Amino acid sequence: MGRNLFSKAKKMKLGKPRGTRDFLPEDMRVRRKIMDTIRTVFELHGFEEMDTPALELWEVLATKGGEEVEKQIYKFQDKGGRWLGLRFDLTVPLARVVSNTPDLPKPFKRYCISKVWRYEEPQSGRFREFVQADIDIVGSQKIEADMECLSTAVDALRALGLEDFEVKINNRKVLEGMVEVLGVENSIAEGIFHALDRLDKVGETEVARSIEGIGVGEEEVSRLLEFTRFKGDDAIAYVEKELKSSRRAVEGINELKRMIELSRTFGLDGTIVVDFSLVRGLDYYTGPVFEVKTKSRGIGSIAGGGRYDHLIEKFGGVPTPATGISLGVERLFEVLSGELRDRAAPATKVFVACIGDENMPQAVGVCRELIKRGIPSETDLMGRKLGRQLEYANSKGIPFVMMVGPEELRTGAFKLREMHRKIEHQVRLEDVPTLIRKLDGSTQQPPSQEGQ
Amino acid sequence: MGRNLFSKAKKMKLGKPRGTRDFLPEDMRVRRKIMDTIRTVFELHGFEEMDTPALELWEVLATKGGEEVEKQIYKFQDKGGRWLGLRFDLTVPLARVVSNTPDLPKPFKRYCISKVWRYEEPQSGRFREFVQADIDIVGSQKIEADMECLSTAVDALRALGLEDFEVKINNRKVLEGMVEVLGVENSIAEGIFHALDRLDKVGETEVARSIEGIGVGEEEVSRLLEFTRFKGDDAIAYVEKELKSSRRAVEGINELKRMIELSRTFGLDGTIVVDFSLVRGLDYYTGPVFEVKTKSRGIGSIAGGGRYDHLIEKFGGVPTPATGISLGVERLFEVLSGELRDRAAPATKVFVACIGDENMPQAVGVCRELIKRGIPSETDLMGRKLGRQLEYANSKGIPFVMMVGPEELRTGAFKLREMHRKIEHQVRLEDVPTLIRKLDGSTQQPPSQEGQ
Repeated sequence: MGRNLFSKAKKMKLGKPRGTRDFLPEDMRVRRKIMDTIRTVFELHGFEEMDTPALELWEVLATKGGEEVEKQIYKFQDKGGRWLGLRFDLTVPLARVVSNTPDLPKPFKRYCISKVWRYEEPQSGRFREFVQADIDIVGSQKIEADMECLSTAVDALRALGLEDFEVKINNRKVLEGMVEVLGVENSIAEGIFHALDRLDKVGETEVARSIEGIGVGEEEVSRLLEFTRFKGDDAIAYVEKELKSSRRAVEGINELKRMIELSRTFGLDGTIVVDFSLVRGLDYYTGPVFEVKTKSRGIGSIAGGGRYDHLIEKFGGVPTPATGISLGVERLFEVLSGELRDRAAPATKVFVACIGDENMPQAVGVCRELIKRGIPSETDLMGRKLGRQLEYANSKGIPFVMMVGPEELRTGAFKLREMHRKIEHQVRLEDVPTLIRKLDGSTQQPPSQEGQ
Repeated sequence: MGRNLFSKAKKMKLGKPRGTRDFLPEDMRVRRKIMDTIRTVFELHGFEEMDTPALELWEVLATKGGEEVEKQIYKFQDKGGRWLGLRFDLTVPLARVVSNTPDLPKPFKRYCISKVWRYEEPQSGRFREFVQADIDIVGSQKIEADMECLSTAVDALRALGLEDFEVKINNRKVLEGMVEVLGVENSIAEGIFHALDRLDKVGETEVARSIEGIGVGEEEVSRLLEFTRFKGDDAIAYVEKELKSSRRAVEGINELKRMIELSRTFGLDGTIVVDFSLVRGLDYYTGPVFEVKTKSRGIGSIAGGGRYDHLIEKFGGVPTPATGISLGVERLFEVLSGELRDRAAPATKVFVACIGDENMPQAVGVCRELIKRGIPSETDLMGRKLGRQLEYANSKGIPFVMMVGPEELRTGAFKLREMHRKIEHQVRLEDVPTLIRKLDGSTQQPPSQEGQ
């Protein structure tokens, strides 16, 4: 048994699925810092956490995000023969919950910071398992709700030390009006949007080819592309004139203007830029769509979302307006991990070194005293020589080492070593917490620059 | 496309997979409180967070937990034809990581609070998707490492307000020695352990029948059951005598005695009880196994674990001793949710009510000022009448409402209403944070009884 069973087995070196990652403590500290900062800002803005399963029924996931997303869903049958899938975003589960819980007080402001899965080709910064941080406001059709999502997202990014934002906005109603004015058949509009969504990635020639491929004439394609080239506030007036025959487009343009008007109120003045090429991939958007970039550090889009007023009724709920935004935690991790790694020290403050194996119970006792007083501490659990214990504390970046040997136990005066500055203090056990709190700020890290 | 596409679709009322749950904010606040408390205690004890994917290769999951667990794994092929599964525990992924990362400083003390999946028949308190909170110490073969896991788990439970613990301990080596002394063939020992593991659930008669069914004689079965009836410290001496011919059993008994000896050092005096019927289901255990119960409130086992010294080499790593314990978050949620629900107030402190639709931008401005000063706040995003806004604040349990109307904006004196006590204060915007911090403790909740 035990030993016998295992000794028979052949050894194997086993990895993990492609596109997934392990996060060892030094990475995890950074990720925890990012997620906690975002969480704090979300809660400051009155969003409350909601959690839903990683697994959803296939019927729930299918067709809600559009064909392209559907192909990316991890799909399988459970042992009862039901088709399930891993969620590919956090919005579809939200819509399912709201549709099944009609008596939620509105607006329902929720957040969720959690994993989603997409079976895509892994590439730099893109993974098959990744974390999204979403906020949504359900029940309000006001543009103020869209703006609240945007400004909360920007506040979260600011709290992480990012600055210099560009908020690209567009409106699905304008895009729909554009198609209407061009006289293109409604049934192929979706194809047009999917093609336009790839403009940034593949360029105009390729997009033009795709749209012509689904049966749109050359002249219409060229007018479509002309629209998408307009950016900035001034462009609104031009497009407004061109699309004035479409009520839907005019509605969309008025919403865009209202967003610009409100930008000062929501702390976003000077950051909002209209961009008619912005589409957002998912099919469920119905009104404003938006993306947040920060110009510093060459970071691309780091948050995106929009209004999806018809998704909840699609799940059988009463018609309920909704809007939301999603922050990409993986992109933030990539960008911030260098500097946060320096600032995110390990939680453990004190390593209690044990001099002489026979004093281990006393070392454990000292350690437990520190823990009781709120100082994260650990002691040697290996029975190692002092030198090896110090090496360990060093390799872990633990800032203080407290020595527990016969001399210290006899006199009650312990040596506390600051590992960075290589300074030793004589201190009584009960004074250690105060001393550490005093020293910690000055030796550990540069002054905090966090926004929160 | 937007509206057209959706209006065509037929409505459906869609649920979620069996054995999974949604957690609306009022549940989630309780869960967050439980998980944060556990996390804090884990970090106080020097454990560091590590994260691994929800998905693992099938080869990694298969056979590591034993046949019974294997049947419970959600298993599927990805689009590339690779067999994957959802992790059924947090220990197997840890062992994979350690085996692939030989240069981790030892002891490697990690924690993970995260979801696992098992395809079991859902029943009261048992779900197909559930959260475990694990700590593990990798690299130490000392009993002190086992004791550190146990005492950290108990400290976490204490911090949650639970008391009066019973820590049941046993040792796989004793169980193996027992089988050896009885002269039972090694190959069926595993079957015996699985049968014994069900003693609590099905009773002695049923267990005896199972063991006889795999070919063990009646007399041996009756001696086996006799062993398992011994509980408490005194029983050790008796079993020691009976099993003294097995070196393995004697080793196990000595470890049990050492655990009892160390219990005072680790703050567990009087709680540790030897129970020879304790087996723990998973096949990978090799030494001490343990379970924590709290006698108050009729809660059953709430944490369990043990030593698994051969699991890491099974994955191709160098032989590495390891031990760990897992807290059942779902059980804690079930037991604590009543009382934590009363204490876990929503994060939002202030609802900024807007009197008159035209003052919405000003209300948003006031709200943003409060947020900037660290007071979690929200404002009306619906354009509702004041009465409806107050109803909303009430239904959400938001403790303060601040009125923003023409009068307040003119004079700069705002009304702040304590919703519980129905008292109104006149206050200037810049004084709101101080006032709220002063009032909050006294009006909100009974004095904190938390351990941390």
